[in-house]
Amino acid sequence: MSGIVYLVGAGPGDPRLLTLRGAEVLQRADVVVYDRLAPAALLDLAPRGAERVDAGKARGRVALSQEAINRLLVDRGRRGLTVVRLKGGDPFVFGRGGEEALALADAGVPFEVVPGVSAAVAAPAYAGIPVTHRGLAASYAVISATLAGGAPADLARTATAADTLVLLMAAERLGEVCAQLIAAGRPPDEPAAVVASASTGAQRVLTGTLAELATGDAEIDPSVALAGELAWFAPPGSPEPSVAAPSPPVGERSRRALAVLSAVHSPAATP
Amino acid sequence: MSGIVYLVGAGPGDPRLLTLRGAEVLQRADVVVYDRLAPAALLDLAPRGAERVDAGKARGRVALSQEAINRLLVDRGRRGLTVVRLKGGDPFVFGRGGEEALALADAGVPFEVVPGVSAAVAAPAYAGIPVTHRGLAASYAVISATLAGGAPADLARTATAADTLVLLMAAERLGEVCAQLIAAGRPPDEPAAVVASASTGAQRVLTGTLAELATGDAEIDPSVALAGELAWFAPPGSPEPSVAAPSPPVGERSRRALAVLSAVHSPAATP
Repeated sequence: MSGIVYLVGAGPGDPRLLTLRGAEVLQRADVVVYDRLAPAALLDLAPRGAERVDAGKARGRVALSQEAINRLLVDRGRRGLTVVRLKGGDPFVFGRGGEEALALADAGVPFEVVPGVSAAVAAPAYAGIPVTHRGLAASYAVISATLAGGAPADLARTATAADTLVLLMAAERLGEVCAQLIAAGRPPDEPAAVVASASTGAQRVLTGTLAELATGDAEIDPSVALAGELAWFAPPGSPEPSVAAPSPPVGERSRRALAVLSAVHSPAATP
Repeated sequence: MSGIVYLVGAGPGDPRLLTLRGAEVLQRADVVVYDRLAPAALLDLAPRGAERVDAGKARGRVALSQEAINRLLVDRGRRGLTVVRLKGGDPFVFGRGGEEALALADAGVPFEVVPGVSAAVAAPAYAGIPVTHRGLAASYAVISATLAGGAPADLARTATAADTLVLLMAAERLGEVCAQLIAAGRPPDEPAAVVASASTGAQRVLTGTLAELATGDAEIDPSVALAGELAWFAPPGSPEPSVAAPSPPVGERSRRALAVLSAVHSPAATP
């Protein structure tokens, strides 16, 4: 009898941003293999007796290597168990979901991908920033600032190609990344924002122009950085990058951000 | 007494891809304002007596104008009602969520954004295609091929800027769009795919090289098109774009796609 492995996106942090399908399979899991970025509260959805394995993937601290995770998923699947591989965000957005799917396919173990809410879009949203907006941003790009081995990514090709640029894994080298984006042609006075621990009680939002963030030495993690007109969450004229206090209601945060947008948004001028 | 408006992302099509938070607010909605792209089954989650308004936004068929939708949300919110604005995918990814949020902020009506699973990532996933994969794709860009007024977008700037390119609203002009991408520098023999009605029983996947799709006149909607190495779902050597039959299990589809990837993927060669 063959088991099945569900590669489940847990969303950006708030456990309520798991999908109904994700909750459904979690509730009948025999085994849950989870990352640091998956909300801890979700583990309570699994049956009391389920095996819980901390794969602990986070920068610089790897509880299990990717190869060990792959082997574990294959092993438990072959034993006929129902396995949930719970990953922060979406499994296929820098989540190594493709590698795990490959390993399962090679081993002949059935699997199903359950997409999740990606932090690449949700973290900006929780700071009041849409990645697209009619007349202001008709494209966005998502790039990891840090490659799998820890090396910095080459950002030049992607830097100016989309209206809104979302950077993942940028927190450790925020100043360097912002400087690279300016060197590649994004305006130094363009609004930028960093959102840490999005959608949780620990959420923090750092805002400023790209030039301001380039000179800072903020290190907040896990976080999502973005640049573009829509990062107007930054109070205009603020001389220093500012860090918003944790967690006023989303609506309140959005209102502040949107009040800034109102000043530049002219629906009549756009199609 | 003030009501509240929830701008809720309903996900790509399968109702089980709604978030727990989305379901929670839907279950106590007094009013649900929904789009054509929001899964119809989700309306059953709302209380029996809730007002249901079909905003019907789809290409060429607009039941309510954006301004009328904004007015409706503000009106019901001011009456103290709990309103769910149910949108396909994510509210802030080409969903006009920013405009509705602006209108609510201007009117002083409290609101909350509930992010959703975006079809931009989930539709490829349901065709077995991750938008990123270590060593093959470290960035992706999302662009609407059609602007709000119906005009074609200028794709040249974004075309080659990311490893994987995801196009929304491309179905009506698929051939034209693929030709533009080739003209902008993407290789004519690059794998490409179109995924229609992703995650539903009506899902269809059209695959081929960019050059092959450029000469076709397929029109499938709603759909997501993408180009990039990871669109290896296309059977190698297929002389014609092929349309996969609806809905083998996701795992089965993924296995077929991943079997192709295995041939090109060499973990040892990548960081």
